[in-house]
Amino acid sequence: MATEMDIQMQLRSLLQRGERETVEDLLWELVEQRQLYAVLRELEPFELARLAELLGDETFGEFLAELDPSDAADLLERLSSQEAADVLEAMAPDDAADVFARLDPDEARQILVEMEPLEAQELQELLSYPPETAGGRMTPSYVALLPDVRVDQAIAALRKVAAEVETIYYAYVVDEANHLLGVVSMRDLVLSPPYRTVGEIMTRDIVKVRATADQEEAARLLVEEGLLAIPVVDDEDRLLGIITVDDVADILEREVTEDIERLGGSQPLEVPYTRATPFYLWRRRIGWLLLLFVAEMYTGTVLRHFEQELEEAIALAFFVPLLIGTGGNAGSQVVTTLVRAMAVEGIGIRDFFRIFPKEFIAGLLAGVVMGTAGFLRAEILGVDPAISLTVGVALFCIVLWAVTVATLLPLLLRRLGIDPAVVSSPFIATLVDGTGLVIYFNVARIILHLHS
Amino acid sequence: MATEMDIQMQLRSLLQRGERETVEDLLWELVEQRQLYAVLRELEPFELARLAELLGDETFGEFLAELDPSDAADLLERLSSQEAADVLEAMAPDDAADVFARLDPDEARQILVEMEPLEAQELQELLSYPPETAGGRMTPSYVALLPDVRVDQAIAALRKVAAEVETIYYAYVVDEANHLLGVVSMRDLVLSPPYRTVGEIMTRDIVKVRATADQEEAARLLVEEGLLAIPVVDDEDRLLGIITVDDVADILEREVTEDIERLGGSQPLEVPYTRATPFYLWRRRIGWLLLLFVAEMYTGTVLRHFEQELEEAIALAFFVPLLIGTGGNAGSQVVTTLVRAMAVEGIGIRDFFRIFPKEFIAGLLAGVVMGTAGFLRAEILGVDPAISLTVGVALFCIVLWAVTVATLLPLLLRRLGIDPAVVSSPFIATLVDGTGLVIYFNVARIILHLHS
Repeated sequence: MATEMDIQMQLRSLLQRGERETVEDLLWELVEQRQLYAVLRELEPFELARLAELLGDETFGEFLAELDPSDAADLLERLSSQEAADVLEAMAPDDAADVFARLDPDEARQILVEMEPLEAQELQELLSYPPETAGGRMTPSYVALLPDVRVDQAIAALRKVAAEVETIYYAYVVDEANHLLGVVSMRDLVLSPPYRTVGEIMTRDIVKVRATADQEEAARLLVEEGLLAIPVVDDEDRLLGIITVDDVADILEREVTEDIERLGGSQPLEVPYTRATPFYLWRRRIGWLLLLFVAEMYTGTVLRHFEQELEEAIALAFFVPLLIGTGGNAGSQVVTTLVRAMAVEGIGIRDFFRIFPKEFIAGLLAGVVMGTAGFLRAEILGVDPAISLTVGVALFCIVLWAVTVATLLPLLLRRLGIDPAVVSSPFIATLVDGTGLVIYFNVARIILHLHS
Repeated sequence: MATEMDIQMQLRSLLQRGERETVEDLLWELVEQRQLYAVLRELEPFELARLAELLGDETFGEFLAELDPSDAADLLERLSSQEAADVLEAMAPDDAADVFARLDPDEARQILVEMEPLEAQELQELLSYPPETAGGRMTPSYVALLPDVRVDQAIAALRKVAAEVETIYYAYVVDEANHLLGVVSMRDLVLSPPYRTVGEIMTRDIVKVRATADQEEAARLLVEEGLLAIPVVDDEDRLLGIITVDDVADILEREVTEDIERLGGSQPLEVPYTRATPFYLWRRRIGWLLLLFVAEMYTGTVLRHFEQELEEAIALAFFVPLLIGTGGNAGSQVVTTLVRAMAVEGIGIRDFFRIFPKEFIAGLLAGVVMGTAGFLRAEILGVDPAISLTVGVALFCIVLWAVTVATLLPLLLRRLGIDPAVVSSPFIATLVDGTGLVIYFNVARIILHLHS
């Protein structure tokens, strides 16, 4: 906490003295340390206005673009509508749209009034697509050429607009009605004779996404095809904007976060963790928690069913958490590896005969080790040797069972058209808990000759 | 299975008829479906040789580069050494090195003998760095310029080598001894007056990685800085090669897979799942499984400690799996979200007073809901109302306890300099299992007035 306050004091005194360059360096350092918002939100509105003025709208906008859009919106709301409008105009349109979408609606309306009509219109067009779609992520700052433009004219045109567009490495070729015809890369242009036309040298087989497609689809295509930018089109193939490679890190990071949160057994958060309220966190989690609870309820029924066995040999109860815990862990290991392999290696039900024997043998080996460990643990605890034997044998069976379920379930779900990623660690643990108990008490019945 | 065989028959007949273009289209389709290796490995060596001949070494090499390197090595080993050497020479050096590193050592030596001396040497230099490092991932196909080259000369030079290098969007500026001085982008070159020298227009503040750095570091830098390629240097800052943006997808995908496998409670696999043997899978998993088992062992001690309570009220045992399962799930939800937020939002111990109250309140809400659900569940099962009350109160306390532990532990580990990602779902579940039982039986003692 101390350093953060030091930095605030430093920033305040730099602001007072108007040391533009030092302020800018300091802010970039805060960006690196992901501390920018934490420091800026402590500034008074007049200090923030002073900062925007000192840096200039363009630079201030660049810093806002580094923040999470909701954090940036929070800061923007502390400026006057006129100041906020100026900053938004200076930002890249896609970044501006992201921030704008998070503003308080009243505030947003006022800011829109203050903006230049043309830029206000551009912003509203971007906002017509939900933020998670390709349309919501794209920027309209691209270069478009008509097919009869000559290569040397195209290079000259690119030079002229270089400062205003997001990428000059690609120029898109469109007809009069803005239908996408092809693409020429800077590489193509530099390597082609100057008197050819872009229509002659363009690539017609172009990778593109619909504006309504998920932004993750755009990111995947960009990365898989090794592109620097991907064009976004409407239903009639008219060019609307582009998504550039700098957006990919953001999109993929969000996607990984969602996967990981799902694996932990909760609904992915739709806002950054730092901005999530306790109530929001609770809402995202309670559904899965209750669902898993309901699924786990049958363990009570199973145990009551074996009440007599439990009363006859209370020591059996000592090992219940150990047995179901180990079963859950063994299943969780398989399921996470397999679900991931299904996603990245394209494994499916057709590979069943290659996967299942492999997991089964690995499960056998694990079962032998864990069964032995279980037997030894029970012996150390000093229970009846017959119970130790029960624990060892049951553990062997439970591990094998957990591995089998964890191998079959994701393959089966994929086959049924359900995303296998729903099988989280908590899910598989819940599934094998009760069935593991059934195995345990049946082994006990046989070994201990209990009558039921 | 049927379709795969159909495709093989189709491929064989196309091969016999020598229909190059149709074969190439078919193979690209298989790449899309991630089925290429599955189909190619069924071909006889003479058919594979025929395929390489028909496509030409360059195209055949491109297909190999699409495969996992160990799969590609497997196919290469079925060709004669001379054929394999030709294909490797035609491949991009970094891809060739990846495949070469996976060849059987005897086979590799023979192929090396058959290769052109220059290309063999290049390959061996790349192989001197481990495959997971920046040096192991880089390609030596970059463009280097001396600082006194003029802009127009540089563009002309780039045109000439465009076909042989991985990217012409950047040219690196080096001194006579190959020390890295700066970088000029194609954009800089196109936008600068032709009579300037690259030394005048180059960017000196250059982002680079050491050859010994982890490849993930290179990928992160590329993405974060929005670069198209990053230079790899040795300890004395001499330029060795570059890593281009096309490698990033690969590297990041592997990193995510590792994170996810760790979350599932196992050591990340170092080979693709499809190539992992059962014994290998077992080895990667058994360590964590045993560790968690040992950690879970104390639940047995806890339960034996409360043996008398269990005997007096055997119904208490019915709810053990439900209680510890719910505790584990509640903890797992918090831990996955928090660990991820620490990684991407830069949250640390200094944010304790913002995070803990939030999680605690969310935990309170969840505790109330789950406690009520637990009470109802016990009532439905028809046990003594005092036991139902015990279950409800204990569940409330356990959820709150699990949430507290799951919030504190990652922050504490980070503070101690340990990667908080070691706290997987199975780990946190194990941790709260036994402590949850202690809570449960102590609540039971109070509510049921048991004497111990």
